[in-house]
Amino acid sequence: MTRKELVDLIFKKRSFLCVGLDSDIEKLPQCVIDSEDAVFEFNKRIIDATLPYTVAYKPNLAFYESYGIKGLMSLERTMDYLHSKKEECFVIADAKRGDIGNTSKQYAKAFFTKEGGFDFDALTVAPYMGQDSVSPFLEYANKWVILLALTSNKGSDDFQMIEDNEGSKLFEHVLRKAQQWGSEDNLMFVCGATKAEKFSEIRKIVPNHFLLVPGVGAQGGSLREVCKYGLNKDCGLLVNSSRGIIFADGSENFDIVAGQKAKEMQQEMSEYLNF
Amino acid sequence: MTRKELVDLIFKKRSFLCVGLDSDIEKLPQCVIDSEDAVFEFNKRIIDATLPYTVAYKPNLAFYESYGIKGLMSLERTMDYLHSKKEECFVIADAKRGDIGNTSKQYAKAFFTKEGGFDFDALTVAPYMGQDSVSPFLEYANKWVILLALTSNKGSDDFQMIEDNEGSKLFEHVLRKAQQWGSEDNLMFVCGATKAEKFSEIRKIVPNHFLLVPGVGAQGGSLREVCKYGLNKDCGLLVNSSRGIIFADGSENFDIVAGQKAKEMQQEMSEYLNF
Repeated sequence: MTRKELVDLIFKKRSFLCVGLDSDIEKLPQCVIDSEDAVFEFNKRIIDATLPYTVAYKPNLAFYESYGIKGLMSLERTMDYLHSKKEECFVIADAKRGDIGNTSKQYAKAFFTKEGGFDFDALTVAPYMGQDSVSPFLEYANKWVILLALTSNKGSDDFQMIEDNEGSKLFEHVLRKAQQWGSEDNLMFVCGATKAEKFSEIRKIVPNHFLLVPGVGAQGGSLREVCKYGLNKDCGLLVNSSRGIIFADGSENFDIVAGQKAKEMQQEMSEYLNF
Repeated sequence: MTRKELVDLIFKKRSFLCVGLDSDIEKLPQCVIDSEDAVFEFNKRIIDATLPYTVAYKPNLAFYESYGIKGLMSLERTMDYLHSKKEECFVIADAKRGDIGNTSKQYAKAFFTKEGGFDFDALTVAPYMGQDSVSPFLEYANKWVILLALTSNKGSDDFQMIEDNEGSKLFEHVLRKAQQWGSEDNLMFVCGATKAEKFSEIRKIVPNHFLLVPGVGAQGGSLREVCKYGLNKDCGLLVNSSRGIIFADGSENFDIVAGQKAKEMQQEMSEYLNF
């Protein structure tokens, strides 16, 4: 999906919500557990209920890999279903890959091609290994790298906030340097909602790039704060919620409640898009 | 595998060679291509030929994921085969994972349990997200985290060498901080052979930890230099070679040549273990 298509989708749906499909089998509602492919059945019902309010879906690979090949088959079916809605949503593999060049090239094939089984629009990538670990992902037309910059978790303080002798923090180095590798048309950054006070600094470095923002909801970040400092003229944000939507209800109406939660977020987002 | 078992294995085989199973389908010898599962057939023959000279195997996940579920089935069969040689080798998933706590917990399940399909001894982990992204992997008895510190690729200069205002580089922060999370019995570090001149500094910070050393061979690192500065009383090194062994020959004798290459490395290693 191109940047223009993504921006058009956001303003058409008046939403920049990303629903995280962290579909942990142990948390699935009883009513889907007996399905032949419970994870796919769950995802399908979540997608159907939330699609009007949602511009992106983000399966987190860990929750599929932890059930081995069976888990990955559920993901493959989920991706087939999402491809049937191709123009209605942007699909992100939250996999945080990154390795030396010839290896990242293989990961790019795994996530961005049909041969790899998935054909995602975007992939989260870890920056630690530098340029040659990121560049192979940027060679695919209309595919996106979403590079970790300032993450939402407690451990983000351990290294991301380390300052060099000129006062630049590691995550700022990542934001600056990566702009030499990709453009606003194929590179986004992960910036956690739990660090909303940092968004104005972040926007000074990357005024136009899209930011993928986890940490609203279960992790405690505020949508209002994120938007106050993070929005740009093209919106420039994809705000993710996972557990707060998909596991909002454990009854047989789980999908209806998930749809309501997504709608509430979309309605708040719609207000912030009034420009 | 415990540290003692690993050290005993090294001194028994007089080798600290790790063979990287980066089994790229496009590079497999013609003679295995027509097998029902060419990647597994290739791996099996490589393992059989190199096992006397090798203490560890390291499948790189990217080369399996790039063929989707079919690729992962080849890896699963390879792991079943390696488990049948359980006491003769240590098996590392080179997957460079790492995510927020509840997600890393799922990755740990994927790589360290039978339910995830693999049951590896060790996993390479990326440090960027800090403590809670690493700790879930350290909770499994006799399983190992191998944390990226100073990698062998060109891009390692981009962030890993950034200095704070006291002159400590990022990779040194990683070495220091991670020692608070794990011990010499469940934590190793990736330190690339292409940075051999850094090994004496590294050994000042982590004198006793094992180091996984990629970059000998195709990437240009020197085994002699690595050993000069990197060896400790328990050996403390696992030196990896991938392409230099597994793709040394493309004929039907590929496994015999791989075995010879592994033997050459083992013989050189044996000299360095004379203490």
